[in-house]
Amino acid sequence: LSNENLATGEPLYHQVADRIARLIVGGTYRAGHRVPSVRRLSGQYRVSVSTVLEAYRLLEDRGVLEARPQSGYYVRSQERPPEPLKTTSCSEATELDVSTMVLNVLRESNRKELVPFGAAVPSPSFLPTSRLNRILAQEVRRDPNTSQSYDAVPGLPSLRIQIARRALEAGVTLTPDEIITTSGAQEAVQLCLRAVTRPGDTVAVESPTYFGLLEALESLHVKALEIATDPRTGICLDDLEEALDKEGIAAVVLVPSFGNPLGHCMPVDRRKRLAEMLRRFQVPLIEDDVYGELAFTPRRPPAVKAFDTSGDVLLCSSFSKTLAPGYRIGWAAPGRHFRRVELLKYSASVSTATPTQMAVAAFLAGGGFDRYLRRLRRTYRDLMQRLAAAIGDHFPEGTRVSRPEGGHVLWVELPSGADSLKLHAAALRHGISIAPGPLFSATGRYRNFMRLNGAVPWSERVEDAVVTLGRLVREQLGARES
Amino acid sequence: LSNENLATGEPLYHQVADRIARLIVGGTYRAGHRVPSVRRLSGQYRVSVSTVLEAYRLLEDRGVLEARPQSGYYVRSQERPPEPLKTTSCSEATELDVSTMVLNVLRESNRKELVPFGAAVPSPSFLPTSRLNRILAQEVRRDPNTSQSYDAVPGLPSLRIQIARRALEAGVTLTPDEIITTSGAQEAVQLCLRAVTRPGDTVAVESPTYFGLLEALESLHVKALEIATDPRTGICLDDLEEALDKEGIAAVVLVPSFGNPLGHCMPVDRRKRLAEMLRRFQVPLIEDDVYGELAFTPRRPPAVKAFDTSGDVLLCSSFSKTLAPGYRIGWAAPGRHFRRVELLKYSASVSTATPTQMAVAAFLAGGGFDRYLRRLRRTYRDLMQRLAAAIGDHFPEGTRVSRPEGGHVLWVELPSGADSLKLHAAALRHGISIAPGPLFSATGRYRNFMRLNGAVPWSERVEDAVVTLGRLVREQLGARES
Repeated sequence: LSNENLATGEPLYHQVADRIARLIVGGTYRAGHRVPSVRRLSGQYRVSVSTVLEAYRLLEDRGVLEARPQSGYYVRSQERPPEPLKTTSCSEATELDVSTMVLNVLRESNRKELVPFGAAVPSPSFLPTSRLNRILAQEVRRDPNTSQSYDAVPGLPSLRIQIARRALEAGVTLTPDEIITTSGAQEAVQLCLRAVTRPGDTVAVESPTYFGLLEALESLHVKALEIATDPRTGICLDDLEEALDKEGIAAVVLVPSFGNPLGHCMPVDRRKRLAEMLRRFQVPLIEDDVYGELAFTPRRPPAVKAFDTSGDVLLCSSFSKTLAPGYRIGWAAPGRHFRRVELLKYSASVSTATPTQMAVAAFLAGGGFDRYLRRLRRTYRDLMQRLAAAIGDHFPEGTRVSRPEGGHVLWVELPSGADSLKLHAAALRHGISIAPGPLFSATGRYRNFMRLNGAVPWSERVEDAVVTLGRLVREQLGARES
Repeated sequence: LSNENLATGEPLYHQVADRIARLIVGGTYRAGHRVPSVRRLSGQYRVSVSTVLEAYRLLEDRGVLEARPQSGYYVRSQERPPEPLKTTSCSEATELDVSTMVLNVLRESNRKELVPFGAAVPSPSFLPTSRLNRILAQEVRRDPNTSQSYDAVPGLPSLRIQIARRALEAGVTLTPDEIITTSGAQEAVQLCLRAVTRPGDTVAVESPTYFGLLEALESLHVKALEIATDPRTGICLDDLEEALDKEGIAAVVLVPSFGNPLGHCMPVDRRKRLAEMLRRFQVPLIEDDVYGELAFTPRRPPAVKAFDTSGDVLLCSSFSKTLAPGYRIGWAAPGRHFRRVELLKYSASVSTATPTQMAVAAFLAGGGFDRYLRRLRRTYRDLMQRLAAAIGDHFPEGTRVSRPEGGHVLWVELPSGADSLKLHAAALRHGISIAPGPLFSATGRYRNFMRLNGAVPWSERVEDAVVTLGRLVREQLGARES
């Protein structure tokens, strides 16, 4: 802090006071908190002790601080908010409405007062949270030095062994040294994208597709070519083949098992055809398998990676939908692109957090995961049927819903003329979060669609939320007709 | 798994056996482990039960598996390794020698048999590991639902409050809503780079500079312009000004406080001049402050961000050097680029791991961090002096060392003709890891330099390692002269 830097003409102690007031308005210090001592702040801001003292007295006069004898200055509880301030830094004004909405939908999942149909986040009540947390505590106590140390890429060996074993369930033969652990599947997919594309490239994706993928592509300056996707069988292979033939596609990114938002499951023969087609065109596939273990059938489908013979399928997944989203544990098996993804992982975040890797590895090694998963899959299947039935009961005629074969999201087509962006705003006012359709395309499509998260314990409140949503849609349609 | 996909002409049960053998060679299943039951593998690979049975019997004949009655097939302890296999996926052959060495140096820090002079990783013995782990266990027990849930960007509020308060020590006025938590400073710097550059841009960096930054730039297709850097006062401002004037620099990335590898501290008047210069050219500064709290003087220097009035300084730091590298908790205060960095964080990894954020926040809120830091800084100062003195005693004449004013790395210039890449290889054979000079430049400079990590408890073994390194350098120089 110095006069010449601010050039406002105000006395220095006013500038100091303004900065402290800004910290209080902004929440760095709150009512009842002690602000730094006069001596300390003098050192921190490199101004004299008397300047700080004058600043604190000014804030005392304004009713922002109070002096407590022998103790220092404290933030007073504010009846009225302190006066507004010049901000020295602020966010850019942007046009990124879709991105803003994506972040908002994600944040809404943490607002306990909302019915969380928006983000695809499982309710904590379905997850083995206390067991997992207990294992976390045990693991860091068992091996404190490992837990606090960098875990060098490609990731914690004990976790990679467990992941390799589980991959067999998807028909995929993997050894631990073919696996890289990541901060969730989102990081895995992004690193794989960076490994097989360059800025300016085009990749083929499903339509509708997960908004996190669209955000990742935009951030990498890679274009998305949206290919029509059947709500039962997945991406149209004829259209994809045509695109591969004509358009110079650098890679394909799919969620073949219980795709988000459709919940579809690509049949096995189509998976084989897809693998063969991509091999023929020598185009890599990034296969996001994050919902793969949440099949409603007794056995999960094989990954497309199971039919990969060229090493050009980059398989990505995580434990965010099955164990703990907040642990941020995902992984990639990038085939022949391993080396490049490993380097990208290092340059992106050095390594994945060690304690949460240890906990997930120990949880999986401890057994019981399959039994737990079977129960979880039944729970989700029942909830999705219930949600679909409630929509049938309470939404206007002409509403259609997907028939997910796994996962925990429902894709809803509202009667033409309904507007899910407006519905999102109206629903929020009624304490309900939804994910509006236009988030699932880069081209503003799906205005009369929405995705609902079904991993919510059923209750009267949830049923009421469906009733309210149906009513809001009816009101929209009525207003349009009048 | 199916015949048409493999097209090898081998019987199917041979292919199954090969895959299982590959899993055993690769470590997915180890000696004494039970492999999947016949029925389960039949489902996983979609082949008949009898095919799996034939495959397991073949592996039994080869001595790889053994059948235990009523229990299943187990991996036998191998006297001789099983026969080599066709691998279906492998890493690309690449020319990235520097990148390989970077990953190796990082991995060496986890090899307990080595004296860890290589990576800049603090020894666990200096860090408050057991207290931090205890707090981690307490926090996830206190609030299990939060601990397992996504922490939506910009990051855990309680942690951002603590970071904002600590920023005052660097003379920086921050509110929690100006801070984004990240997976370590590496992610923070990379996200800030992506926010202010585009592929093809050039950024100005110190020379020598941290290899993690060079890897990040390469991965982003951004060029590094290396500016001469004084080992006491930092980057040459005249050269930087000339480059800003002529070269179309998109951003500057610096470690002004105890730069890696020089350990220098830019004087305050130069920080002011730098801030003014960048404002004039309207070029953003990414300020990596990861060593800022490790000053050897009683008070840490102010961040350049303290003199920022335009919001164009993006301040990045972490708790990897002061609390726990493996927790992966860093942060960015990107000024007016906040919104863009927040979106990039979401698209890169959704959010930072929740449990480790909770633990760091609670650790900082609990008090005592400053007292602990004071002790840590004294420890590092003493160790660095000791390391420098030992080099003076044991290295050949003409060796020079940096005089770090903070942090825990020493930059060593060996007599001309010495080769630190060869030294790295020779030292490893003697159980010592170092970071060779060429890692710190994109242009192959610094062949006769190396960086030593000083955050290693002093011992006879460590002193012996210095003696050995000195001897190896002498041998190199002797061999050259003979």
